[in-house]
Amino acid sequence: MSTLQLYNTLTRKKEVFEPIHPPHVGLYVCGPTVYGDPHLGHARPSITFDLLFRYLQYLGYKVRYVRNITDVGHLENDADAGEDKIAKKARLEALEPMEVAQRYANRYHDAMRSLNVLPPSIEPHASGHIIEQIALVEDIMAHGFAYEVNGSVYFDVEAYSKANSYGKLSGRVLEDLMANTRTLDGQSDKRNPADFALWKKAAPEHIMRWPSPWGDGFPGWHLECSAMSTKYLGETFDIHGGGMDLIFPHHECEIAQSVAASGHDAVKRWMHNNMITINGQKMGKSLGNFITLEELFAGTHQLLAQAYSPMTIRFFILQAHYRSTLDFSNEALQAAEKGLQRVTSAQKTLQQLKPSEKSSVDVTRFIQDCRKGLDDDLNTALVLAAIAEWVKTVNSVKDGSEQLSAADLKLLQADFKVVVNDILGLQAEPVAGHGNDLTGGLMNLILQLRSQAKTSKDFATSDAIRNQLQAMGVVVKDTKNGAEWSIE
Amino acid sequence: MSTLQLYNTLTRKKEVFEPIHPPHVGLYVCGPTVYGDPHLGHARPSITFDLLFRYLQYLGYKVRYVRNITDVGHLENDADAGEDKIAKKARLEALEPMEVAQRYANRYHDAMRSLNVLPPSIEPHASGHIIEQIALVEDIMAHGFAYEVNGSVYFDVEAYSKANSYGKLSGRVLEDLMANTRTLDGQSDKRNPADFALWKKAAPEHIMRWPSPWGDGFPGWHLECSAMSTKYLGETFDIHGGGMDLIFPHHECEIAQSVAASGHDAVKRWMHNNMITINGQKMGKSLGNFITLEELFAGTHQLLAQAYSPMTIRFFILQAHYRSTLDFSNEALQAAEKGLQRVTSAQKTLQQLKPSEKSSVDVTRFIQDCRKGLDDDLNTALVLAAIAEWVKTVNSVKDGSEQLSAADLKLLQADFKVVVNDILGLQAEPVAGHGNDLTGGLMNLILQLRSQAKTSKDFATSDAIRNQLQAMGVVVKDTKNGAEWSIE
Repeated sequence: MSTLQLYNTLTRKKEVFEPIHPPHVGLYVCGPTVYGDPHLGHARPSITFDLLFRYLQYLGYKVRYVRNITDVGHLENDADAGEDKIAKKARLEALEPMEVAQRYANRYHDAMRSLNVLPPSIEPHASGHIIEQIALVEDIMAHGFAYEVNGSVYFDVEAYSKANSYGKLSGRVLEDLMANTRTLDGQSDKRNPADFALWKKAAPEHIMRWPSPWGDGFPGWHLECSAMSTKYLGETFDIHGGGMDLIFPHHECEIAQSVAASGHDAVKRWMHNNMITINGQKMGKSLGNFITLEELFAGTHQLLAQAYSPMTIRFFILQAHYRSTLDFSNEALQAAEKGLQRVTSAQKTLQQLKPSEKSSVDVTRFIQDCRKGLDDDLNTALVLAAIAEWVKTVNSVKDGSEQLSAADLKLLQADFKVVVNDILGLQAEPVAGHGNDLTGGLMNLILQLRSQAKTSKDFATSDAIRNQLQAMGVVVKDTKNGAEWSIE
Repeated sequence: MSTLQLYNTLTRKKEVFEPIHPPHVGLYVCGPTVYGDPHLGHARPSITFDLLFRYLQYLGYKVRYVRNITDVGHLENDADAGEDKIAKKARLEALEPMEVAQRYANRYHDAMRSLNVLPPSIEPHASGHIIEQIALVEDIMAHGFAYEVNGSVYFDVEAYSKANSYGKLSGRVLEDLMANTRTLDGQSDKRNPADFALWKKAAPEHIMRWPSPWGDGFPGWHLECSAMSTKYLGETFDIHGGGMDLIFPHHECEIAQSVAASGHDAVKRWMHNNMITINGQKMGKSLGNFITLEELFAGTHQLLAQAYSPMTIRFFILQAHYRSTLDFSNEALQAAEKGLQRVTSAQKTLQQLKPSEKSSVDVTRFIQDCRKGLDDDLNTALVLAAIAEWVKTVNSVKDGSEQLSAADLKLLQADFKVVVNDILGLQAEPVAGHGNDLTGGLMNLILQLRSQAKTSKDFATSDAIRNQLQAMGVVVKDTKNGAEWSIE
């Protein structure tokens, strides 16, 4: 019997998680559109569902995690040129959307690696699944829920709504949608303003295009996720995730597409992370507060007082429950940086503690408290609070005010690793990759020379050592266990 | 007028390289089949064509470099099950070829990153271009060079050979091929044993399958490269590369497919890297000498006396001209490791040299000699010889037996960076990632304390420092410029 409860956006309540085909779990998450730099908005869903992926695996499930890449872009040639002409003259001189997509997909992957986000099991490209998407459109049409106009195919929301509930995920009411949706450019072919495109006819200047039963075109935005989740996870699968901004229209349309094609829902539970704000404002290019992950890691955006390491960002995002809004500010990030330092330095301390005869604390509570938080809809705020409490305990053991037996010390070391590194995905900052041990070795030698200088009352030297280290960002602290060092 | 000469496998001679549409260059290279770990056999083509990619960019060309991922595999369900049954029961319980492909593609990318191989401009997946491959088959059929039998389509080599030369790349003679090719399983549908499959009917147990005008199936192996190179580089493009083992049948068939479909050759020049042997033997799983890149980097294969860093492998591969065979042995790799160390330590020395009034050597010769080697069909053996000569010069400047003016020193530093780091893609080993400067700072402090100990005749301390450093793999050498250190 599972103890994990997850909030389901569809039912609007927490539910015990039981997979359809245990021990297998099928998880689909909407990935990036690769026509721009990865930014803050990408960090939260990727870290949220990375946490879920890691925790489900910790619980013993075999997870197939599919996160797509949306590379069907809307780049256009200048209108005079036209694809055919360019293909004949010099294909190489034309803008190639796939080259743009590849560049940004690479950058996205680099950022994910920095954030210690595990690669998903399958990362399908929308452009690589056109056949499946066309087949899905044909299925929906065969069931009478779509119509073709001038080489485009639209989903018939009114017909669908007669027997099904369009709006059940987002809570939107169809009548309002029909009344309020403005008629935008190119939507005049629709029978109803609430209808959405399944397949769009490609204008001559549209570069990305494929042949279809309705002529050359490209798939509508919502189609890829329905087609690819079914292909890799089956007609019914466990969890579909994404950012809250995708609930409408994207996920609502996904539901409609699946039900229209197969007669039943594909997704058993929907999970959505809440949004990020910056100093209380929505992030947006026009507001000048659009911060890319690269800018964040390098500290190069005007709103940033300093650089924030990927692990600081990860810690910061985990500090809030994924369904709460999260506000980025320098103060909050600096606090996260300190919080992360406390955890990683406690973990280091934990490795150096000397065991006592008996324990004065019950170490089994650590993993219990952490799991309780995770089981409660991945409430990482609770988990980090539990960790903070145990960081204090670790420091008390170091001070001598608490004790741990050898067996308990070993257990706590192992459990810290499981929770902090494996499940939360937090790592000590890579101060020195291959040379980590070297830095430690050099520091030991220096501290030994410093202690020698002190013993022989050569305080000029011992002070000089401390000052020079400080200038390099290495802080030395004298404790009753000897000198300790850390990197600022 | 270009000074770059490249050997063309098709004409069997070196030719001056002139792109079809300057400054653009279209380069297509056959990438990995992602159903196994990246191994030694992957390292040579990827490094060879990475070098070409880098050098062409250095020469000012705008290169679109396409390297495919072959993910259309031949995984099968057990024969009883059948795809439909599994899809209906629990898709998740079935082996998913794309999950396997993703895992190995990730591992390939990790290895390429370690080897400092730049990502190509576009990395198209075979499975993502089924539509284009089907269209190509239809084109070839429409021209009368292919026929359908029982849901499979074969290329008609005999019909093609009436007007075209099948075998012109590999030098094979059609009559021999027809006489000598054994009839293998499932080839009985062919009119002629030399014919090859463009599209294969999928047996029920075959997992990867797509609908086509000839029923459910999957593309023949040679098809993807023809379809994807045309899609991204145009109907005629500059360079197609790959390993020599691909000349026949793969590249020969690619030529036939393109000519059959479009009436002309797609590729202007073909480049092939020679093979790798291990202790004089061909690499093969049955011979027990199949070494993955991971094993090589970790030193975990029984044939390896030690771990070899990715940069040592890169240096080793660059030591030979790409058209020569290359034999892997511990002795040769250890020699490469030393050679690389000499170059990187000379580059470090170069940064520390003090300029003189006048130069005793002509530094402009360095880049001239290197370019001469590169222009000669990417003869990296010549380039590394030129570098070795200049490593000696750098050390002579350090000894005081040669001199460099401030301007020449600056030029030589810049040119070393261009050739060693940018074009050859060699980097100093990442001794300490983020902490590189920290290691340097700590070492300066330690050497200063050591020098202080020596001055005060405290040889016990100065010797202890040297010994402890040595134990960490740091070698200290006293020179007339003061103490120097390096990592063993």
